[in-house]
Amino acid sequence: MTHYRVGVIGGGQLARMMIPPASNLGIELKVLAEQENSSAKQATTAVGDFTDIATVLDFASSVDVITFDHEHVPIAVLEQLEEQGISVQPPSKALVHAQNKLVMRKALDKMGAPNPIWSAVSTGSELDKFISEHGPEVIVKTPIGGYDGKGVRVVSSSEQVSDWLSEQMLLSLGGQLLVEQKVPFKRELAQLSARNQSGEFVSWPVVETRQKNGVCSEVLSPAPNITTEFSDRAVKIARLISESLGVTGTLAVEMFETASGELLVNELAMRPHNSGHFTIEGSATSQFEQHLRAVLNLPLGKTDPLKPIAVMANVLGVSDSKDFMDNYNQVMTEFPQAKIHSYGKSPRMGRKLGHVTVVGTDLESCLEQAQAARDQLNK
Amino acid sequence: MTHYRVGVIGGGQLARMMIPPASNLGIELKVLAEQENSSAKQATTAVGDFTDIATVLDFASSVDVITFDHEHVPIAVLEQLEEQGISVQPPSKALVHAQNKLVMRKALDKMGAPNPIWSAVSTGSELDKFISEHGPEVIVKTPIGGYDGKGVRVVSSSEQVSDWLSEQMLLSLGGQLLVEQKVPFKRELAQLSARNQSGEFVSWPVVETRQKNGVCSEVLSPAPNITTEFSDRAVKIARLISESLGVTGTLAVEMFETASGELLVNELAMRPHNSGHFTIEGSATSQFEQHLRAVLNLPLGKTDPLKPIAVMANVLGVSDSKDFMDNYNQVMTEFPQAKIHSYGKSPRMGRKLGHVTVVGTDLESCLEQAQAARDQLNK
Repeated sequence: MTHYRVGVIGGGQLARMMIPPASNLGIELKVLAEQENSSAKQATTAVGDFTDIATVLDFASSVDVITFDHEHVPIAVLEQLEEQGISVQPPSKALVHAQNKLVMRKALDKMGAPNPIWSAVSTGSELDKFISEHGPEVIVKTPIGGYDGKGVRVVSSSEQVSDWLSEQMLLSLGGQLLVEQKVPFKRELAQLSARNQSGEFVSWPVVETRQKNGVCSEVLSPAPNITTEFSDRAVKIARLISESLGVTGTLAVEMFETASGELLVNELAMRPHNSGHFTIEGSATSQFEQHLRAVLNLPLGKTDPLKPIAVMANVLGVSDSKDFMDNYNQVMTEFPQAKIHSYGKSPRMGRKLGHVTVVGTDLESCLEQAQAARDQLNK
Repeated sequence: MTHYRVGVIGGGQLARMMIPPASNLGIELKVLAEQENSSAKQATTAVGDFTDIATVLDFASSVDVITFDHEHVPIAVLEQLEEQGISVQPPSKALVHAQNKLVMRKALDKMGAPNPIWSAVSTGSELDKFISEHGPEVIVKTPIGGYDGKGVRVVSSSEQVSDWLSEQMLLSLGGQLLVEQKVPFKRELAQLSARNQSGEFVSWPVVETRQKNGVCSEVLSPAPNITTEFSDRAVKIARLISESLGVTGTLAVEMFETASGELLVNELAMRPHNSGHFTIEGSATSQFEQHLRAVLNLPLGKTDPLKPIAVMANVLGVSDSKDFMDNYNQVMTEFPQAKIHSYGKSPRMGRKLGHVTVVGTDLESCLEQAQAARDQLNK
């Protein structure tokens, strides 16, 4: 019997949202979670430390392919899996670019993908030199370990990252920090795509992502006011990256759109991504189903929009106790178009607890409803 | 914290297909399955005999509401749950009508819902009298325990059900058989609806169901060539039944359409139903999500079609060994519009193993693709 078994390292909401398509397609989904009662607990078959090779090897022995809920599994661990013949998708040689922002910037330059001006610095004076050339403000990033605004600072002097420049911290980060020009962007966009090992490539509409405090707040699909030339360019960049790096699975390319209409790559994620949650209701194939198909090297699904417009609004914790499911009755009554997603997490200030998606034909109305439903959930 | 917990008795594909919406909404789904490795094993928290009151009571103590994957739980068991204050949805007083076809026929007559001509018989001579009046052929049904064509016979003489008329068999069936006129129907339809305890009622488009050997083969939504008057009449019948019997959750009313345009109720199911699988991709709210919302007395979701047309084709086992997932690569390549569902069951001749849904704008094309994809899966 054909029995597809996908092992996901990480028990967060991205693993959780793979449960529905896996169940529909009859794919057995197994999750190695960091702790009991994770968001993906329904599919959790092992709890343990993903930096421990024995734990990961043992988990991998029960599945056909290993993939990810996050990009924090050490490359050394993944290389050991690959050496033992285990299918890791995306492979370590691709994933390293989502894990290490300096490695990513070098590769993007090499393939000719548009980057902000950037440099690798290891001393305060190197950083101050970059600031004097490209400042007054610049973005300093820890090459590894950052997400949702963590590991990112806007600075105008090296003193503002003196902690990161300490010998010990630098050592833990690989010896260098990444510094980038602070791009005077008009807005932020994301291009979601997927690729399987056979080289099949598909993309969804380029979306606008709105952030609050460095965390995704709303996603508008498609990004309003774009030309076909523009969206084709976004797809071309995604495809160039996907093929150059040998990405398998879902790839999210976060980009800046500048005032002059340039597209500059900001971040990469080689897994389902917050900017693609709208695909659950908005697309013939969701990013979660597509990821499963891609890592199993199955043919990819159609990415046609089901409705012209989709808007997603994140539900972030507003306190350490407010449970938004308390408001289900009211929100379901007032916003019948809103599809509510709960990640089954206990509330915590600022934590991603769920999201709301509204699909339709009118952007303003979808956006208004998604935001209002989200706000009502948080009341 | 608000924590919705739904307990489903029965571990078949209907319980399995509740997993995705439960996961999305953050509803904890627990299943009491008859055996290990059931279709709904991912949500199975107990394995046991649903006719054993201690087993069911123990299971019920871990959830907020008990609902069903099938209608075979003895009413006596459900009444005991209700006596102990456990919420059973649909309640036993409604569910008895889906369990016992004689009880159903009497109730339908009483509320004025259109029925085929029928009678309760307990002897061969009573049956032969009915045949002489309404024959030459009639339908004889065991009042309880039938499904998918089982417990149903087309007969022209009481001798053809002499086994069912034996003293012992009759006793196990409650003392009587149901005999119905063999309706010269044009086609079979099904009206899916849902109702919650607060009395909110929603319906999906009336669908055409095509059967092979008494088992659903394809479902076409909406039923082709119907007027608004006709579809309104179908909804009215469903609503009359739902409200008269106090149904909660999803209700499927299977009906005959006669040559003269009459609608006659054939069967009732008070749970998600094969005729409603198209709602997963075809409707803003699937019958599975709606059932969960209804039994929890949450507000019901929109039932707007996402595309004008949806066609579902069942994948029935063609042998005891053919595993249709072997053909995933080919079918996903050839039929990119087809959404494949596997129920995770081992193959068996005639067994419902999965289904395929195609949504779109053209009925002929959707039907052709759904059937061809299904046939290819079974090749």
